Amino acid sequence: VRIEGLAARLAAIVGPAHVLEDPDVRAGYELDWTRRWRGTALLVVRPASTAQVAATLDACAAAGVTVVAQGGNTGLVGGSVPRGDAPAVVLSLGRLVQLGPVDTTAAQVAAGAGVTLAALQAHVEGSGLRFAVDLSARQSATVGGMAATNAGGIHVMRHGSMRSQVVGLEAVLASGETVSRMTGLVKDNTGYDVCGLLCGSEGTLGVITALCLRLIPERAFRLAVMVGLPGTSAALDVLAHARRLESLEAAEIMFAEGIALVGEMTGVRPPFAAGYGCVLLLEFAADEDVTDAVAAVLEHAGCPDDRLAVARAPAERARLWELRERLTEVVNVVGVPHKLDVTLPLRAIPAFADGVAELVRSVAPDARAYVWGHIGDGNLHVNVIGPDPDDDRVDAAVLQDVSARGGSISAEHGIGVAKARWLGLTRSAADIAAMYAVKRALDPSGMLNPGVLFAGGAP
Amino acid sequence: VRIEGLAARLAAIVGPAHVLEDPDVRAGYELDWTRRWRGTALLVVRPASTAQVAATLDACAAAGVTVVAQGGNTGLVGGSVPRGDAPAVVLSLGRLVQLGPVDTTAAQVAAGAGVTLAALQAHVEGSGLRFAVDLSARQSATVGGMAATNAGGIHVMRHGSMRSQVVGLEAVLASGETVSRMTGLVKDNTGYDVCGLLCGSEGTLGVITALCLRLIPERAFRLAVMVGLPGTSAALDVLAHARRLESLEAAEIMFAEGIALVGEMTGVRPPFAAGYGCVLLLEFAADEDVTDAVAAVLEHAGCPDDRLAVARAPAERARLWELRERLTEVVNVVGVPHKLDVTLPLRAIPAFADGVAELVRSVAPDARAYVWGHIGDGNLHVNVIGPDPDDDRVDAAVLQDVSARGGSISAEHGIGVAKARWLGLTRSAADIAAMYAVKRALDPSGMLNPGVLFAGGAP
Repeated sequence: VRIEGLAARLAAIVGPAHVLEDPDVRAGYELDWTRRWRGTALLVVRPASTAQVAATLDACAAAGVTVVAQGGNTGLVGGSVPRGDAPAVVLSLGRLVQLGPVDTTAAQVAAGAGVTLAALQAHVEGSGLRFAVDLSARQSATVGGMAATNAGGIHVMRHGSMRSQVVGLEAVLASGETVSRMTGLVKDNTGYDVCGLLCGSEGTLGVITALCLRLIPERAFRLAVMVGLPGTSAALDVLAHARRLESLEAAEIMFAEGIALVGEMTGVRPPFAAGYGCVLLLEFAADEDVTDAVAAVLEHAGCPDDRLAVARAPAERARLWELRERLTEVVNVVGVPHKLDVTLPLRAIPAFADGVAELVRSVAPDARAYVWGHIGDGNLHVNVIGPDPDDDRVDAAVLQDVSARGGSISAEHGIGVAKARWLGLTRSAADIAAMYAVKRALDPSGMLNPGVLFAGGAP
Repeated sequence: VRIEGLAARLAAIVGPAHVLEDPDVRAGYELDWTRRWRGTALLVVRPASTAQVAATLDACAAAGVTVVAQGGNTGLVGGSVPRGDAPAVVLSLGRLVQLGPVDTTAAQVAAGAGVTLAALQAHVEGSGLRFAVDLSARQSATVGGMAATNAGGIHVMRHGSMRSQVVGLEAVLASGETVSRMTGLVKDNTGYDVCGLLCGSEGTLGVITALCLRLIPERAFRLAVMVGLPGTSAALDVLAHARRLESLEAAEIMFAEGIALVGEMTGVRPPFAAGYGCVLLLEFAADEDVTDAVAAVLEHAGCPDDRLAVARAPAERARLWELRERLTEVVNVVGVPHKLDVTLPLRAIPAFADGVAELVRSVAPDARAYVWGHIGDGNLHVNVIGPDPDDDRVDAAVLQDVSARGGSISAEHGIGVAKARWLGLTRSAADIAAMYAVKRALDPSGMLNPGVLFAGGAP
């Protein structure tokens, strides 16, 4: 490690104002959004262009320090802050905020890695197009971070995750070389899908600096439906009917305990009487009015008339969605949740959802589990309040249960440091060896985000 | 190279009947579908399971021979037959034809690599679901080969290419290790997208043995529209209007010379008078009847009433599509085409399409160029008849022109051996170096499909 003079070298690249050494200033870059992970950065560097990112990585490589790339720092698995086991530079992409014109013919837009989702949405608004991925951290989450973690959100069931939106990408590799494919060509079978490989690589293979993103037409008609149901099996029945409709865009599930908590703390409640085991929130979007088709499907699926709310106007729809969005906020107020984001085969969901609270209590008797999720994808968020941040016995128990049921230990949050030790629950030794071979090929010295994905280095 | 005894070792793995050494029997595996590429196989081996594929690769590695994986051998870039520069075994996946039950809840099906597209379609029929990728080689093309080449076809604009359909994959790597992710979980952010990396890797990173494939709901209503237009700019105008409709599923373009050739040779003609520069063929699919919405859009786009055909019944739609499907057949009868499959930014299409015939003649005065393609994706197939198979001056001129216009030298056919020397027209040196690093990481000895993708080995 030859870190003497690194700050000066970086200042020459990005300007002295963008090399942050003051501990108070650094602090916001050192603690992640969940407050479970914190580290100490050697310094924070804020380049303003791909060329500056490349020069920054060269300087860090020469100094022998590791690099943690950081977007909006809204990750939930500790992948965007230093670990503290080696001197790390935090490379913030927050200044790469350029936005290209909205190309309405190709339905695409180019964006710097540091553009927030909210800024992208505002930029696209009024064009007749919209960006397909949406999530509640939109004010802070950046498109670069969302690509690096292959973010999901509420529309994956119809439009795919972040990787599906990326039609072009630019990234700097550990070698300091820039790979770039910003042509926006939807079909381009010229070798390996390096863009897709970098999406979801969690900062371990390269630093994403720019993206060309697919946009989708804004639909003229939207409908939100909230329905209270006895339990998960009934919810899956309704879902099976509803997903025959092409217009189904989101299918969220919430359970009684979480809904009660939101009600107590915010006053936001479903617009019907309690007595349900879970609540399903569906959103439909189409060129035409699909109210009749949706009503027919819901009736056919046996939805109860007295626990059903339908909203068409934006404000009415927002009211239904508020319950879902408040759930995340409220749980974060109650405590520092262990956020276990898992996918299960749809058929395995009822047994898992019915048993998870008891499983959690069997490990940590005082813990509370709040569960919600993107039921359309089989993706549940299990939020456990109670155990200390460093106590991961509950995490282990839940993830092992998920694995035994054929599920995945991460649906959309990624592995980060939070789940690195459990990667083997979902991926085989051969899979992990293949991934590590790719890691070693593109980052031989292991300078990019060490500790993320592969616990303790080589598998 | 220690090839003595290889045939016997392979026979012990797959059974003697499935190690083909007779030159007459081998011949069908040695000549590709375009008839431009031919090689000599040491032998052809036909394993019947993933385990047999793994043992086969181990035996080939021990013998020091290279391996060319082959599905339906319908590739168009010479990637599925031996090159003849090194002793190669052809590994045919044709016996991996197992098909799992259609999972109507998850909308998925598991299929062996050797299942043909037609067999998959037949298997799924009647379930209310269908497979999103369709192409005219459906009787021979296998899902394994389609994944290995990230095949496209006529529905990419709405449903994505083959990579987008793969929700699970099993493959044997050069090491003999099997990577497997057949859980069918749509959201699974647990490390690098090895499935996506293998899709489109053209047999150079591993041998795909099984897939879990996404299915989509069959739509109740379908409409095909054929319209004759003055030229490419007019076609792009109509497309810009039509793609606002979510129901648009395919948008194909054909030009007057090709249509005339089909008419002469088969009698199949558009159902309206000549005088057009090009013909656009659109297909719409929706839950509801969208005839009025489509008619409104076509009128708004200024489609001529007297060169417009609309078809709803299956037989009527098939008649419109016949023109498009016959085009490929007819050109293959006229000669051995140089098949140049390119993508261009939509705005660059008119100038390219208007100039390509003259560009071809400027290099080869007696050559004829027939152009058609998936205009919705900016993907044109330039078929050049005339030059000898080994004479690639026309190929070079067209691909350089595409590159200069911001396009890609391969949209959906891949690079294979046909375009390996021109990879640098579309991918930067840094991109190619990154790809080669991945290749070396997963196939250090270069035993899998040498000569494909990377011309002459290391870049």
